[in-house]
Amino acid sequence: MNALTLRSEESAMTPLQARRLRIHTVHESVVFLRADSPVCRAEGLGTQVRVVVRSGAREIMATLYQVEGEQLGVDEAGLSESAWLQLRIQDGDPVSIRHPRPVNSHSALRRRVFGLRLDDTSLGMVIDDIAAGRYSDVHIASFLAACTTLPLDLQETRSLTRAMVDTGVRLDWGSSMVLDKHCVGGLPGNRTTPLVVAIVAAHGLVIPKTSSRAITSPAGTADTMETLAPVDLPIERIREVVEKEGGCVVWGGSMQLSPADDIMIRVQRALDLENDGQMVASVLSKKVAAGATHIVLDIPVGPTAKVRSAAAADHLEAVMKAVAADFGMEMVIQRSDGRQPVGRGIGPALEARDLLAILNGAPDAPQDLTDRACALAGVLLEMGGKVEPGEGLALARETLADGRALRKFEAICEAQGGRREPPVAPLRQTLCAGEAGQVSAIDNRRLARLAKLAGAPETACAGVEMHVRLDDTVAEGQPLCTIHSASRGELEYALAYAEANPEIISILPF
Amino acid sequence: MNALTLRSEESAMTPLQARRLRIHTVHESVVFLRADSPVCRAEGLGTQVRVVVRSGAREIMATLYQVEGEQLGVDEAGLSESAWLQLRIQDGDPVSIRHPRPVNSHSALRRRVFGLRLDDTSLGMVIDDIAAGRYSDVHIASFLAACTTLPLDLQETRSLTRAMVDTGVRLDWGSSMVLDKHCVGGLPGNRTTPLVVAIVAAHGLVIPKTSSRAITSPAGTADTMETLAPVDLPIERIREVVEKEGGCVVWGGSMQLSPADDIMIRVQRALDLENDGQMVASVLSKKVAAGATHIVLDIPVGPTAKVRSAAAADHLEAVMKAVAADFGMEMVIQRSDGRQPVGRGIGPALEARDLLAILNGAPDAPQDLTDRACALAGVLLEMGGKVEPGEGLALARETLADGRALRKFEAICEAQGGRREPPVAPLRQTLCAGEAGQVSAIDNRRLARLAKLAGAPETACAGVEMHVRLDDTVAEGQPLCTIHSASRGELEYALAYAEANPEIISILPF
Repeated sequence: MNALTLRSEESAMTPLQARRLRIHTVHESVVFLRADSPVCRAEGLGTQVRVVVRSGAREIMATLYQVEGEQLGVDEAGLSESAWLQLRIQDGDPVSIRHPRPVNSHSALRRRVFGLRLDDTSLGMVIDDIAAGRYSDVHIASFLAACTTLPLDLQETRSLTRAMVDTGVRLDWGSSMVLDKHCVGGLPGNRTTPLVVAIVAAHGLVIPKTSSRAITSPAGTADTMETLAPVDLPIERIREVVEKEGGCVVWGGSMQLSPADDIMIRVQRALDLENDGQMVASVLSKKVAAGATHIVLDIPVGPTAKVRSAAAADHLEAVMKAVAADFGMEMVIQRSDGRQPVGRGIGPALEARDLLAILNGAPDAPQDLTDRACALAGVLLEMGGKVEPGEGLALARETLADGRALRKFEAICEAQGGRREPPVAPLRQTLCAGEAGQVSAIDNRRLARLAKLAGAPETACAGVEMHVRLDDTVAEGQPLCTIHSASRGELEYALAYAEANPEIISILPF
Repeated sequence: MNALTLRSEESAMTPLQARRLRIHTVHESVVFLRADSPVCRAEGLGTQVRVVVRSGAREIMATLYQVEGEQLGVDEAGLSESAWLQLRIQDGDPVSIRHPRPVNSHSALRRRVFGLRLDDTSLGMVIDDIAAGRYSDVHIASFLAACTTLPLDLQETRSLTRAMVDTGVRLDWGSSMVLDKHCVGGLPGNRTTPLVVAIVAAHGLVIPKTSSRAITSPAGTADTMETLAPVDLPIERIREVVEKEGGCVVWGGSMQLSPADDIMIRVQRALDLENDGQMVASVLSKKVAAGATHIVLDIPVGPTAKVRSAAAADHLEAVMKAVAADFGMEMVIQRSDGRQPVGRGIGPALEARDLLAILNGAPDAPQDLTDRACALAGVLLEMGGKVEPGEGLALARETLADGRALRKFEAICEAQGGRREPPVAPLRQTLCAGEAGQVSAIDNRRLARLAKLAGAPETACAGVEMHVRLDDTVAEGQPLCTIHSASRGELEYALAYAEANPEIISILPF
C-alpha cells in the first residue's frame, strides 16, 4: 500500500497559548482545552485522549480534558503543574498539541497479557516506551498484573533488568569497591540502612546509598532519613558528600537511575503489588546504575512478610544472584526473622526516633533493630576486607558502642545539608488489649496498612508505635500500640480499619 | 483490639460549596479543591487520592486534584461534569468530602492477580465494588489482565456472569419467547443485527435487541444504528417500540443491564483487551438482563478475527453453552468465515450505507453481508417456529427480497424517533496497490485499528471503505480502500499507520 502522507508537523503546529492552572495531578500530566477549540476540531481530539504537547524543542505526553465556558480561552491550553514544569514555559508561550504516534510496544504488551513470554527486544521496547511516558497508567497496570499472574521467568527478569539499566544513567564513584545494602522489605520498621552506612563509612569504606521512598510500605529509607536530613540532593552534591564522608543516605529518585522503574513504582503503589521478577529488576537495575560492586541483601522471611516461606526465599535468592552475576556484582544474602515488625516505630519520624536512640546508646533503644543493623554491617566490613570472615559483627557492635557510628552519622547529615529533628504527631490514639493473654501473632501487612491509613509516609509524623512484641503477656486494657496522625480524618480512617481487623495483633487468652 | 472510634460522619460533614467547572473527564469523576482548603488539611487529603463526595443523600467516588491560586475559592469544591451530573446539584449547594472506606474486595483482587482462583463470593464482592465505582481504572486493568493471563475457568466464568446479572436490572417482555442475536465480533463491517431484527420482527416474533457501542472495534451495532435512528431510549419508550413493532435496535448502555460490565468495558477499550470468560460473562449477563430466552450466536473464525482457530471456537462455544444453560437460555451457535471484513463499510455511517443498500435491494449491495444476515435470521425463524428446520434461510431471503424487511426496518426507525441519513465524511484518502497481483490476506485487526485511527466510532462518518476482497486480482495503482475522516489530524494519523503497516492488505505479486 502506498499512501500520500501529509506532513504531521503541519497540523501539529496549530498554535495555542500556554496557561498555568496550578492543578496538581502527580502522575499524569494534564492539558485542558476548550471543547470548541480549533485544535480539538482540527485534530479530532476527544476528551481524556493521550496527546503530545510541544513547546519549542520540548515534548511531553499528557491526558487531554475538554472544558466548556469562559474559565479558559478558546485559544488557550491550560496545563497541570507537572506538565508546566516539564515544559519549562511561561504564561502565553505558544504550545502545539497533536496525536501521539501509535505505541510500538503495545502489541508486545498484549502478547504478555495473553500469557506469552517476551524476549530481550520486546521487553526493551516496553521499558523504553514506559520510560518515555508513552504508557498510560492502565497499560502499566496490565503489564504489572500480567507479570505477576504469570511470573516473570529468569530470562525475562534478566532482560527486564537489562532494559531498565539501559534507560537510566550509570554512576562512577572512581573506586574499585563500592558497597551497597538492600532489604527486600515487607517488614515494618526494619530501618537498618542509616545505621549500616554510618558503621561502614566510619571505617573508610565507600557506601553511597541511594534509597527509594516507600513503594507499598508506610516508609522508605528516604522517607525516614528525610526527617533527619535533606535527601533530595543533585548528583554533584551527592559526590561532595561521598568524597568527604565516604557514605550518604539520599533519595535516588531524582537521579533517573532507573526512570522506567520510577514510573512503574507509582502504579505498583496504587495497586499495592510487587512480584519477584519486578523486585529483582527494580533493585538490581538501581544498584547497577548506582555503581555498586559489593552488596549485602537482607531477606526477612515470615508468614506476613513480603517473602513468606523458605521456599519463596530460595527462589528469590537464586534469581537475585543469577541476575547480579550478569552485571558482575558480588552479593551476600542474609535471611532474617520476618515474623514481626522491627524496632518500635512504623512511619518516617517514628522510625527515625528509633535510629537516634540506637546511635546515642539510649538504654531503651530497640535491641532487635540494633542486632539486625550490626549483622548486615558486619558482612560489609568483611566484604570490604576490614576484618577476617566471622569478625565483622563484633567490629560493627564496637563501632556503634564507642560512638564512632554516631559521629559519622552526624557528619553525613551535616554534609547532606544539616541535621533535623523528626516531627511529632499532634493526634494519637492508643489501642489496648481487649482481654488478658499472650501476643500470639502480629500481621505485618495489616499493621503496615494501618500506618498508611494513619498518613504514613506522606505525613512524616504519622504511623504506628508498637508497645508489645511476639510472646509478650498482656493484661486486659494494656496498651498494644499507638496510632500517630496529623489529621482527624486519617486517624478515624485508621481506627475504623483497626476495629475491623482485630487480627493485626492477636492475643491468645489465658 | 478495642479502639474508641470517632464517628466518621462528623468530619465528613465539613461543608464546601459546589462549583460546576464544566470539565469533561469521561471515566473518572474529578473534584478540585484548593490545596489550602480546610478539608484537605482536616482530612489529610493529598492530590489524586480517591474520595467520597456527598451531596444530600447522593454519594459518588471521585479523584481529588489539588489546585492553587484564585480560580477556585478556598471553601469551594470544583466538580467535573460527570460528578456534577451524578450528584444532580446546583452551584453553591453544600457538598462534603471524606476518605472512602477500604475496598473489601481488594484482597480478593490481589489473590487473583497472584494467580489464585476466586469463588462465587469473592467474585461477587469484586463485581459489586466495581459496579459501585469503588475501583480505580488501574485496579480494573489489573483484574482484566489477571483474568486474561490466567484465563477465567468455567466455574469462575459462571460466577462472574451470575455476579454481573445480580448487579443489574432484569427486563420482562411479557412473552414466553424472546429472541436475541449476538456476534462475538472481531470482524469489521459484520453488521447483521439490524437486518436480522427487521426480518424476524417482520414475522411477528419478539426481538427487543439491545446493542452495545464499540468495545475495541471501529463500530458497535448501537453506533451504526444511531446514524439511522435514535438508539438512546428510556426503557418505557423501548417497551412502546417493541409492543408496536415486535423488535427494536437500541443502545443497552443506559439501561444498567450490567453496570459492572459497562464500567469494565471502558478499561477494556483503553487496553484493547477482551478475554473469553469476560466475553461470555459480558454477553450472557446482558442477555439474561434483557430477558432473552432464545439466542443465535455468530462466531466468525479466522486468523485475524477475535476467534482465530477452530479449537478456540470449540472452547468459546462450550463455555457459552454451559453458562447459557445455567440461566435456562436456548442457544444455537453458527460459525462463519472470519478471514476478511464483511460488506464494504467499516465505521458507523459507512456500515449503515451497506445496510440501506441491502434493504433497498440495490444491485451493488454487498452479497456477503446479505448471506450472513439471512443465515442468522433463518435460525431464529426456525427457533421461533415460523418454519420447519432447514427452511429458515429461504424464508429470510424472501422477506428481504419482497420488501417486508425494509418496511419493518423503516417502521422500527420511525418508532424509535425517526429515520436519519448517515453522515458523509468531508475528508477522504484512497490507498492504492503498490504493484499488480492478487489480494492474499487482509488483516482484520490492523484494518480495525486503521478505521479507529481515522476517527471511528466517536466520529460517525469516519472509517474505511473497502474496494477489494480476498483473492481479487489488482493492477498497480488500483484502489484498495478509502479512508474517511472528519479531521486532518486523524486522517494523517491513519495514513501514517497505513504506511507503517502494508500488511493491512497483502498483495501477492504475479
